[in-house]
Amino acid sequence: MTQAPFQDYYPDYMAHCYGCGRLNEYGYQIKSRWEGDESVCFFDPKPYHVAVPGYVYGGLLASLIDCHGTGTAAAAAYRLAGRPMDSEPPLRYLTASLHVEYLKPTPLGVTLEVRGVVKEIKDRKVVIAEQILADRVVTVRGEVVAVQVPDQMLRELMGKE
Amino acid sequence: MTQAPFQDYYPDYMAHCYGCGRLNEYGYQIKSRWEGDESVCFFDPKPYHVAVPGYVYGGLLASLIDCHGTGTAAAAAYRLAGRPMDSEPPLRYLTASLHVEYLKPTPLGVTLEVRGVVKEIKDRKVVIAEQILADRVVTVRGEVVAVQVPDQMLRELMGKE
Repeated sequence: MTQAPFQDYYPDYMAHCYGCGRLNEYGYQIKSRWEGDESVCFFDPKPYHVAVPGYVYGGLLASLIDCHGTGTAAAAAYRLAGRPMDSEPPLRYLTASLHVEYLKPTPLGVTLEVRGVVKEIKDRKVVIAEQILADRVVTVRGEVVAVQVPDQMLRELMGKE
Repeated sequence: MTQAPFQDYYPDYMAHCYGCGRLNEYGYQIKSRWEGDESVCFFDPKPYHVAVPGYVYGGLLASLIDCHGTGTAAAAAYRLAGRPMDSEPPLRYLTASLHVEYLKPTPLGVTLEVRGVVKEIKDRKVVIAEQILADRVVTVRGEVVAVQVPDQMLRELMGKE
């Protein structure tokens, strides 16, 4: 089944994020999809995304955990509500906290696979556990606590468009 | 007293990091210095480093916490050893874990101030507590557990130059 990535459903006024916004031409434009109960995102770091030569920059890995987490949070909220992801009002999430464990150096030059599972979802909060794999080896574990964008902020952002 | 930033002392083979390497022309090239017992770094995000319009991207904030943390870890280790930062063998640190709390949205368009203090330093491990301020308001708190680069990895990196 063809499935558009979560991020393609974000309304324009929420699609400027450097990590995941499809309208940010300088950004990473990550794409996340469901694969059963897990969400998955594939990403190819650029040659200059290094910590030391040959290994991926930890800040980029943190960014992947972050944006794949908030994307998964949004998708999970829509799924729980039984609503399509392009329906109004938008359910969008911000990161309240981010935790990343670097288990071993992540090699540069292979496509990275970011996988997420929903640990908790209630009210306006979603907790996502994630891992990053390089060549099928888990190199990073992470957790994101995502909270729904406050209504007041949503209205402000809509007003800016 | 004029004081060169920590990152300017990294040997060339450790100066390619996307976050803090002076030789990474695409990277952030952050600069950290002591200010008494605190380390401080000032950074101006680019206009496209946004999460939503008007607010700084969380992945960039995590990167600042990360690299300012490892830089502070290195500087603290040299200070503890009573050695200048350009002396051999190099004391360089990698991130074992990174924790970031986003307390409130960080406004774009002001110089960010990242401040760090050493919470713990022993053997090959340093823990750094940090905060990011925008217009003197703390918007982010973070913690980095940094570990000294293994000797084997150092030798590999030196061999690549």
